[in-house]
Amino acid sequence: MKEFGMVYRLYYWDGLQGRGEFVRLALEAAGAEYEDVGRADAPAMMAILESETETSLPFAPPFLQDGELIIPHVANILMYLGPKLGLAPKNKNLQFVANGLQLTITDFVAEVHDTHHPISTSAFYEAQKKAAKARTKDFLQNRLPKFLGYFERMAARNPASTKFIVGGRLSYVDLSLFQVIAGLQYAFPKAMRGFGKQYPKLAALNKRISNQKPVAAYLKSERRLPFSESGVFRHYPELDMAPAKAEAEADAS
Amino acid sequence: MKEFGMVYRLYYWDGLQGRGEFVRLALEAAGAEYEDVGRADAPAMMAILESETETSLPFAPPFLQDGELIIPHVANILMYLGPKLGLAPKNKNLQFVANGLQLTITDFVAEVHDTHHPISTSAFYEAQKKAAKARTKDFLQNRLPKFLGYFERMAARNPASTKFIVGGRLSYVDLSLFQVIAGLQYAFPKAMRGFGKQYPKLAALNKRISNQKPVAAYLKSERRLPFSESGVFRHYPELDMAPAKAEAEADAS
Repeated sequence: MKEFGMVYRLYYWDGLQGRGEFVRLALEAAGAEYEDVGRADAPAMMAILESETETSLPFAPPFLQDGELIIPHVANILMYLGPKLGLAPKNKNLQFVANGLQLTITDFVAEVHDTHHPISTSAFYEAQKKAAKARTKDFLQNRLPKFLGYFERMAARNPASTKFIVGGRLSYVDLSLFQVIAGLQYAFPKAMRGFGKQYPKLAALNKRISNQKPVAAYLKSERRLPFSESGVFRHYPELDMAPAKAEAEADAS
Repeated sequence: MKEFGMVYRLYYWDGLQGRGEFVRLALEAAGAEYEDVGRADAPAMMAILESETETSLPFAPPFLQDGELIIPHVANILMYLGPKLGLAPKNKNLQFVANGLQLTITDFVAEVHDTHHPISTSAFYEAQKKAAKARTKDFLQNRLPKFLGYFERMAARNPASTKFIVGGRLSYVDLSLFQVIAGLQYAFPKAMRGFGKQYPKLAALNKRISNQKPVAAYLKSERRLPFSESGVFRHYPELDMAPAKAEAEADAS
């Protein structure tokens, strides 16, 4: 148990799910006490980011504060929190397997982000629409099935459980997969149309997570912000298309 | 000490430094026994990647095998190896700080990769040259100084040492920074022209690493492949420019 006053402090941009949501889901699923500092007190977050003395300066949000310790990067935060929250395999070696899966999710999420920002993270989507269209086509045709196929295989092969992707109990990796799939369904409804049939293990995992009691309560709460075009997963109808069409267009070009 | 026959097995594509080099540098700097399986026996690597039963299937190389355990992703491999090789802080909390820095390097390297592959990882550079030019301009103008400035500050603020970026001894993060800087100097000689003056801490760190005995011996050996246009850091003269020029061109557009 954490001592009084020693709640986890999560720092992330206010007003969007973004990458902070992967950490938030783990904290919520475990019923952990945490303060959403970026939302409650944005200047406190900026004070750390712009600090001229902080020795554990994060490059960017999200980051987690636990007492004196500041930990940046989603996968790093989750590797730290996982065992403390009971959301990681107990076996030390399997914790590295979990981290490996989480880092593949990190790469997947970065590629989703780059579908709408292929040229510059600081410029608007509207200024890079043409490149976004080309990158999204490639993503939906090649990368999306590659990533989803990989996670489907891993879910099918977990020797410890048919319910979870790694180890014998719910882990932060399952929660992150839920978030990625929910995000993809929001951003690319056409491309994701056959998802349940094509990836039955992932679809079952996703349903299981959304029914987990603390997660279900969180998803219904005001703390769960909706997906939006400020986040990583953005729905731009002009980018979305069924993978088959993406393939046909690429063949024709 | 590892038992006879229990050497680390590194798997990475043959013929290029790529992301495998970050792991190779750590193994070499520590004088660890390892087998470069991807180079010595490429089919053995493909057998794992294409296995229909392997439960710890990696999404992509590099990955490390230590006995039964298979660990994918550079930062994950280094977090696992670091303490074993004496190349990580001894303090557990600082190990998460090191991992946070390494994951920022991971992001930095992914952005370097995307300067020449902004649209599709599977298509040739030549098929995405125009977008590559635009992305590289943004990278050199905005991202390169942001990342290097961040690491310079972190090197200056390490409370435990003026010689290393985290903790009181050489770590895998120092070695990875060396590799990134060497790669950037190869890929973007114009953009990196003022590097030593602008980032004196990083420049000193880099010199120190290249003079570390096992590293210096490795760099002179045949095991160190040259940078090339198959790797992450590629020198395409048409993409390189001094950051000031990148700024002027972006203003004019």
